[in-house]
Amino acid sequence: MRNSNREWYFAERPEGEPDTESFELQEGDVPDPKHGQLLVRVKYLSVDPYMRGRMRDAESYAEPWDVGDVLRGGIVGEVIESESDQYESGDLVTGNGTWADYSILDADDVAPVDSEIADLPAYLGTLGMPGRTAYFGLLEVGEPKPGETVVVSGAAGAVGSVVGQVAKLNGCRVVGFAGSDEKTDWLTEDLGFDAAINYKATDDYRAALDDAAPEGVDVYFDNVGGPITDAVFTKLNLDARVAVCGQIAHYNDEEVPVGPRKLPMLIAPRAKVQGLLIGDYATRFGEASEQLGKWVSTGELKHRETVVEGLENAPDAFLGLFSGDNIGKQVVKISE
Amino acid sequence: MRNSNREWYFAERPEGEPDTESFELQEGDVPDPKHGQLLVRVKYLSVDPYMRGRMRDAESYAEPWDVGDVLRGGIVGEVIESESDQYESGDLVTGNGTWADYSILDADDVAPVDSEIADLPAYLGTLGMPGRTAYFGLLEVGEPKPGETVVVSGAAGAVGSVVGQVAKLNGCRVVGFAGSDEKTDWLTEDLGFDAAINYKATDDYRAALDDAAPEGVDVYFDNVGGPITDAVFTKLNLDARVAVCGQIAHYNDEEVPVGPRKLPMLIAPRAKVQGLLIGDYATRFGEASEQLGKWVSTGELKHRETVVEGLENAPDAFLGLFSGDNIGKQVVKISE
Repeated sequence: MRNSNREWYFAERPEGEPDTESFELQEGDVPDPKHGQLLVRVKYLSVDPYMRGRMRDAESYAEPWDVGDVLRGGIVGEVIESESDQYESGDLVTGNGTWADYSILDADDVAPVDSEIADLPAYLGTLGMPGRTAYFGLLEVGEPKPGETVVVSGAAGAVGSVVGQVAKLNGCRVVGFAGSDEKTDWLTEDLGFDAAINYKATDDYRAALDDAAPEGVDVYFDNVGGPITDAVFTKLNLDARVAVCGQIAHYNDEEVPVGPRKLPMLIAPRAKVQGLLIGDYATRFGEASEQLGKWVSTGELKHRETVVEGLENAPDAFLGLFSGDNIGKQVVKISE
Repeated sequence: MRNSNREWYFAERPEGEPDTESFELQEGDVPDPKHGQLLVRVKYLSVDPYMRGRMRDAESYAEPWDVGDVLRGGIVGEVIESESDQYESGDLVTGNGTWADYSILDADDVAPVDSEIADLPAYLGTLGMPGRTAYFGLLEVGEPKPGETVVVSGAAGAVGSVVGQVAKLNGCRVVGFAGSDEKTDWLTEDLGFDAAINYKATDDYRAALDDAAPEGVDVYFDNVGGPITDAVFTKLNLDARVAVCGQIAHYNDEEVPVGPRKLPMLIAPRAKVQGLLIGDYATRFGEASEQLGKWVSTGELKHRETVVEGLENAPDAFLGLFSGDNIGKQVVKISE
């Protein structure tokens, strides 16, 4: 066990595609928990596309990081020292921590982790924030009905892989867009998607959808934006619902991106398009966690994580999100 | 009274901006009503932007016109001959007729007109399809709450002028976009809009909105699209609702129009954008007509029509919609 603490700091705001210049690793003392706090040895750290937004000096849904701030993110770890009655040393917990070997968390803000339901990294993906995002975004915004066609972009990612499986559990035909044959094979062979389109193997997404979604699109869960989304919008059925969860294709844009105007496409199908943030469902997280945990326990909901080893590689793991390096949830393994 | 019947036919599909080449006037016999039908002498004819869509050879919400078809539209007229128990000669009715001196309508598909509530042309505007579109679109899709800011484009048109007034009646702050000082004066001085922006007098719609909607936009009722809509989307408040009723700026486009991508703008405010067609509310038309009629009777809801005289000028009246010639509802007066 280390007796010093390494932490990643935000060194420089990126312009366009970020690189490792934005990150700086510093070493210091292991911090002491105050009353009500826990000292947690981080086992796994979550890196997520939304963090790109925090690198911008612009007000948005997530507080922007200031240069010099320690980087924060979801973690799973073991309580090393507890100043709370709620947890004791050795407990496994998940919460919002730091990109570090050790992290201080308020006991009120963490949740216990049950390693019998799933391995620890799953608590940062399917059983964590991405899984809950998929659950509420699909069911509350998408409102899928049995027999409908659900299309999801970023389908092999942490959110998309749960969206597609939950849609299947709801009796839908499910089509996913992903960026490699390995990913599309995973979707159709392991996760039960009815069809998957490797968007790097074709330019004609509309033709691919004509094959994969012959009856049009009733629900579109969008994690990506860009040309995939442009094609899906031409296939919206009457009363279609679109959940706008992420737009990773545009996160590194420095100018407002331009594309086909979509509002004229909404009138004939009376389609509904709605932005989605998981924080709005905070009071119902328990419901999602219970249902997702049950499905994982029975094997009806599969999960997968791409693990990068070592805190020193956390920036690379984050940057890899934008080139689609991950299958399932991207996590960083910090310690055994 | 004429003893022949003039009718406008669809002569040629336009490309881009339509002109009078698309229209051909033919003269023939006055038709005979069959059982259940009425022969109606047309007094006023409605020309509406959605008719541009019917000129395209593409499936959409309104059946496309074929070259050689007689042109159809909303009318108000007087029953000349009735083959139905429901109406008799001399009754005033409104329904879906033809661009003609005389029109045959099914008695089941017309509604009586009460000229004591309002002059006849109002039954094609505020008390007709545009008024009902405004009513349901604003209240059901926009869901305005007292104190919220409602922005409407095409605010001095048949739909927009009702949207703004109904929003005022619901306790909202109302901002309208329109294309002349005469129009914006009408909105603020006669209709009670809190602010109106002449979009032909400025290029910086965003700055104009900063002044006119300092607390942002909670509801946007869009009749227009294009750069006005682009600006409004940058001002959407948390949980904003956008009703996409029309996109007249794009109706003459031959290519898919391009503009700033809007989906990334929906995530932070969790905004909802929904296409709107009045036909979906057909079972509730009575409710809207009753409420709109009451407001018109009490003077709480004002209406205005721009009247072009003479059936021979109907195409010009239609074409004028795309240059914003009308204040309030554009109608054509066919007979006294």
